[in-house]
Amino acid sequence: MLVAGASGFTGALAAQIVWDHPRLELVAITSRSDAGKRLDALYSRYRVPLELTELDPDDLTGVDAAIVAYPHGAAAPTVAALRRQGILVVDLSADFRLDSIDTYRRWYGEHGAPDLFDAGVYGLSETHREELRGAQLVATPGCYPTASVLALAPLAERGLLTDVVVNAMQGTSGYGRSSDDLVHFSAMTENAFPYKTEGHRHRPEIEEELARLGSAAPVVFVPHLLPLDQGELASCYATLREPVSKEEVQALYRERYDGEPFVRVLDGPPNLRAVRDTNECHVYVTVEERGRVIAFGAIDNIWKGASSQGVQNLNLMLGLDETEGLL
Amino acid sequence: MLVAGASGFTGALAAQIVWDHPRLELVAITSRSDAGKRLDALYSRYRVPLELTELDPDDLTGVDAAIVAYPHGAAAPTVAALRRQGILVVDLSADFRLDSIDTYRRWYGEHGAPDLFDAGVYGLSETHREELRGAQLVATPGCYPTASVLALAPLAERGLLTDVVVNAMQGTSGYGRSSDDLVHFSAMTENAFPYKTEGHRHRPEIEEELARLGSAAPVVFVPHLLPLDQGELASCYATLREPVSKEEVQALYRERYDGEPFVRVLDGPPNLRAVRDTNECHVYVTVEERGRVIAFGAIDNIWKGASSQGVQNLNLMLGLDETEGLL
Amino acid sequence: MLVAGASGFTGALAAQIVWDHPRLELVAITSRSDAGKRLDALYSRYRVPLELTELDPDDLTGVDAAIVAYPHGAAAPTVAALRRQGILVVDLSADFRLDSIDTYRRWYGEHGAPDLFDAGVYGLSETHREELRGAQLVATPGCYPTASVLALAPLAERGLLTDVVVNAMQGTSGYGRSSDDLVHFSAMTENAFPYKTEGHRHRPEIEEELARLGSAAPVVFVPHLLPLDQGELASCYATLREPVSKEEVQALYRERYDGEPFVRVLDGPPNLRAVRDTNECHVYVTVEERGRVIAFGAIDNIWKGASSQGVQNLNLMLGLDETEGLL
Amino acid sequence: MLVAGASGFTGALAAQIVWDHPRLELVAITSRSDAGKRLDALYSRYRVPLELTELDPDDLTGVDAAIVAYPHGAAAPTVAALRRQGILVVDLSADFRLDSIDTYRRWYGEHGAPDLFDAGVYGLSETHREELRGAQLVATPGCYPTASVLALAPLAERGLLTDVVVNAMQGTSGYGRSSDDLVHFSAMTENAFPYKTEGHRHRPEIEEELARLGSAAPVVFVPHLLPLDQGELASCYATLREPVSKEEVQALYRERYDGEPFVRVLDGPPNLRAVRDTNECHVYVTVEERGRVIAFGAIDNIWKGASSQGVQNLNLMLGLDETEGLL
Repeated sequence: MLVAGASGFTGALAAQIVWDHPRLELVAITSRSDAGKRLDALYSRYRVPLELTELDPDDLTGVDAAIVAYPHGAAAPTVAALRRQGILVVDLSADFRLDSIDTYRRWYGEHGAPDLFDAGVYGLSETHREELRGAQLVATPGCYPTASVLALAPLAERGLLTDVVVNAMQGTSGYGRSSDDLVHFSAMTENAFPYKTEGHRHRPEIEEELARLGSAAPVVFVPHLLPLDQGELASCYATLREPVSKEEVQALYRERYDGEPFVRVLDGPPNLRAVRDTNECHVYVTVEERGRVIAFGAIDNIWKGASSQGVQNLNLMLGLDETEGLL
Repeated sequence: MLVAGASGFTGALAAQIVWDHPRLELVAITSRSDAGKRLDALYSRYRVPLELTELDPDDLTGVDAAIVAYPHGAAAPTVAALRRQGILVVDLSADFRLDSIDTYRRWYGEHGAPDLFDAGVYGLSETHREELRGAQLVATPGCYPTASVLALAPLAERGLLTDVVVNAMQGTSGYGRSSDDLVHFSAMTENAFPYKTEGHRHRPEIEEELARLGSAAPVVFVPHLLPLDQGELASCYATLREPVSKEEVQALYRERYDGEPFVRVLDGPPNLRAVRDTNECHVYVTVEERGRVIAFGAIDNIWKGASSQGVQNLNLMLGLDETEGLL
Repeated sequence: MLVAGASGFTGALAAQIVWDHPRLELVAITSRSDAGKRLDALYSRYRVPLELTELDPDDLTGVDAAIVAYPHGAAAPTVAALRRQGILVVDLSADFRLDSIDTYRRWYGEHGAPDLFDAGVYGLSETHREELRGAQLVATPGCYPTASVLALAPLAERGLLTDVVVNAMQGTSGYGRSSDDLVHFSAMTENAFPYKTEGHRHRPEIEEELARLGSAAPVVFVPHLLPLDQGELASCYATLREPVSKEEVQALYRERYDGEPFVRVLDGPPNLRAVRDTNECHVYVTVEERGRVIAFGAIDNIWKGASSQGVQNLNLMLGLDETEGLL
Repeated sequence: MLVAGASGFTGALAAQIVWDHPRLELVAITSRSDAGKRLDALYSRYRVPLELTELDPDDLTGVDAAIVAYPHGAAAPTVAALRRQGILVVDLSADFRLDSIDTYRRWYGEHGAPDLFDAGVYGLSETHREELRGAQLVATPGCYPTASVLALAPLAERGLLTDVVVNAMQGTSGYGRSSDDLVHFSAMTENAFPYKTEGHRHRPEIEEELARLGSAAPVVFVPHLLPLDQGELASCYATLREPVSKEEVQALYRERYDGEPFVRVLDGPPNLRAVRDTNECHVYVTVEERGRVIAFGAIDNIWKGASSQGVQNLNLMLGLDETEGLL
């Protein structure tokens, strides 16, 4: 196993999870910016005693699979190079998540490997498990789409959604390692704010997946940044085709997620501490007094929203137990 | 001036603001639970060198006005006693905020002074300024209604609102001083969660005020608790009677709030740190890519959402400059 | 296995660690205040699906060992009752930590089982490993003594210490679950302060252990509370009998802790995030420019400072691998 | 008034305090990195509606006084240029704080205006008030020296100190605006750590000032970074020439600071929230059970530890009331 881009927040965590995984062997971790440093020196909380190296696509002997944790846009060419050598790839970027390349171009710019654009399987195992078994290139969903879609999938699959407002919030790990004024501790403590209020690129990703599931509903999506490290909540306000009672909708969710190893349907509102450092998504659905269905999805944005979900995908691709290394 | 209930979060802050006020004299601060303590010992961050005493309604010589910071339900009898002596009252509780006593009973229980139920003027000066001048009993709005209504008032007044989702979030000062497991630092740090998801009593208060302003629209309201002390954000998703462009709606807001001393219409999303320890409400309105109008209102929940707004009301009741002691 | 007092912070964590332990079976968790609740409902971050019950000392069939997580003073009678039935006990309280019952009485009051006072083995395995193997009653050290003694043991064992200042700091989990104004999130965020500045009961415990190790040195000890949940740092300023170079003292520490599974001697200052949710103690020793030896010990106060250290002790008592269930 | 370097944390705050000052007029704020931006856009919490410009030393008509908030080393040439035009300067850097230029060179490198090195008056008004009245160049003390010296001055002035350990802690605003991995919210939350453990440049500054006051005592100094924004605590462990009782030392402190407008001698341990956003230093002194004198000094590191203390100095230089604009 190789983790490329292991000096960023999600790559470093992916390296740790693979390192601890009973069935995978981590042979290399790479980074352009921090080559030469050991990962446990860069992040003292992680315990991977390997040195970061520069990725050399011509020297990947013994690597069967890779997790690529590059920024959007930068990932595609590297993914293509790895695939050309027959290496299975879990990509954590947005480069292979979307159905429409026009949508990709609008939100992310030119694509670095357009021939491969359609090759990625959308890596939400709760909705695409069968396609993921044996897939060769998997696009791990964005963190917001993960929480939002898992909160809404039972309704989407029944074709019930006509209109959705997703009010999402996330901790600063979602902002990534690239420091700037905004995520300085002095700026974030005792603060919170919405951002990308005129449009965020996770909105089309959510809409595409809801449409694939059965509900081509318009989504209004506004993310907020919170003064915490790891954790993400999608509070979804759904208008349905027909009224539904609280009991019905709660029964629907319990039935839909029965047996899912990483989705817990709760009896009350979720909280972010309960999912921190886990691959779980906690879901709660209710009908409030005005009749609107409200569904919450809570995840750890860099675990289920990125790195551990990537390993969940890898387990499926490799024919391992889906939960291996994740409980 | 008297502040009754000055040992709680909002009462203590009200005492501090009155103490610093150039035109008011704070003669007594009262508390049932902490009588005998000095306020600056109870809250080292406040600088009011007075001792908390038990309120004696028969010994209020020299008191012309009072701020009552009692819990909902407990406030009404005390307010009634003060009013019987001709004392002007700013009440921070919900006891005199609502139009319908049936609604009050549903959400708060029996009312402690039903004869006085209709006597309170709703203390949002941005929408009720003229009624507040010379009023004798003012009900300071709830924190969530303050942020939500100020975010929506320009639309409500034009009768444009047909449906509103308010996703609100607030720091732990809004939970009040009464400690319990939920607001223990160890429980709240790195956490966030929705609460009262099936219905919160600020929802009818918001609906009543929007209706008074011109839009009898149903409101879906879900509050969330955040890991910060002071600060509150209402993210409001509004469906309008007719489409409106971003330019139009932004112009409407600028015009509506032009000259308002404590409302700032921003050019971009608000943040909570910018309003901390102020009586300001920061408002931003936009139309997102799906056409929905989104309006944000950010306040400090114990300042503009409670104590400093109470003093703003007091200034109007007493014929002082509305901004006295608040800039 | 039984965990008594599992509704408090350290008891709940002990229950979780035992639950996950590959060689232990958790058969009961007890609580006076929260009997009838499930532990995973009381603390959503923990995953122990058992119901808390009231402890019935007459119905402990099948229980071979217990962790007691009661408050100081309350622990002794329960420990005695369990011992009378031959149950091995790891006590997390201070009731069996001290050598001198007079010292105990001064700091904690009357002892609840004086006959058993001397029966406890001091549960710091790094300094008492052999006594712990097969012990029947173990007193897990206080959190501050754990961090302080591990930071100083190599010097103490050589008889080098003549005088020590321990400036310690800890997160709010060390304050325990009992809520009050001090640990309300609104009081602790953006705050920090020393407490027990005229004397803290962990001071005599540290002095007794340093004396047992070889240095009967007076200790000045001042704890501080920090705005974080889990984590504790002891910054120790030591005056030695004879000067020592930085190289010498660092070599001494590396040699002393070579092979210790849970002590890591670092090359630079420790940080609290690196030890969170672990049984590790990170130690760094240096000689600053004025010639004073400074030694730091960093732990997670409820893991190595309480619950996981208790399990480490249990492993030794039961003849298991010391690291079982703790890596 | 000019504030040079107003885009950094201390410069921006200095600009705000001068802007609000009843007797000063802020005519320009300058910045190399952020020229062209308005200060209230750069820091939404500040309300100075001026645009940052590049400093032009040839165009300072109308400027009588300046606060320079440049990094150490960069300040000296600018200070010299301003002084050449007769402008009074309060410098917030270390460039004019020390007595010995050799010490300066060791810790900070070459000095940018050696001719002026001796011209700065040490700007701790509590110990140098008379020199500050009418001074033309004032070096505002470092934040750690401010808290440490105010905690120790009464003892130092009596010549009582023979040895001092200063364990200091500070929030992330002390780290400055320059973002890097260390102060990313995701790195600092739930974290704390010592730094510069082998020697920090504030140590010689503290020693020089204690010597000037009467005690040439060696100081051991270790700073720590805490997960909060503004606030700093110096916990000082002092060995005295002769024993002193708690009553004596507390009486000494009360007498020494009687009448000081910004020093409050407390009856118990200080806390950081009580001094946030103020120019106050809270001091508490005691004798702990082992006989060591412990003195605490708590300040807001960017207020009394930098910007507001700079304005306090300016008031004295200009012959204004020392407290003007600071209460």
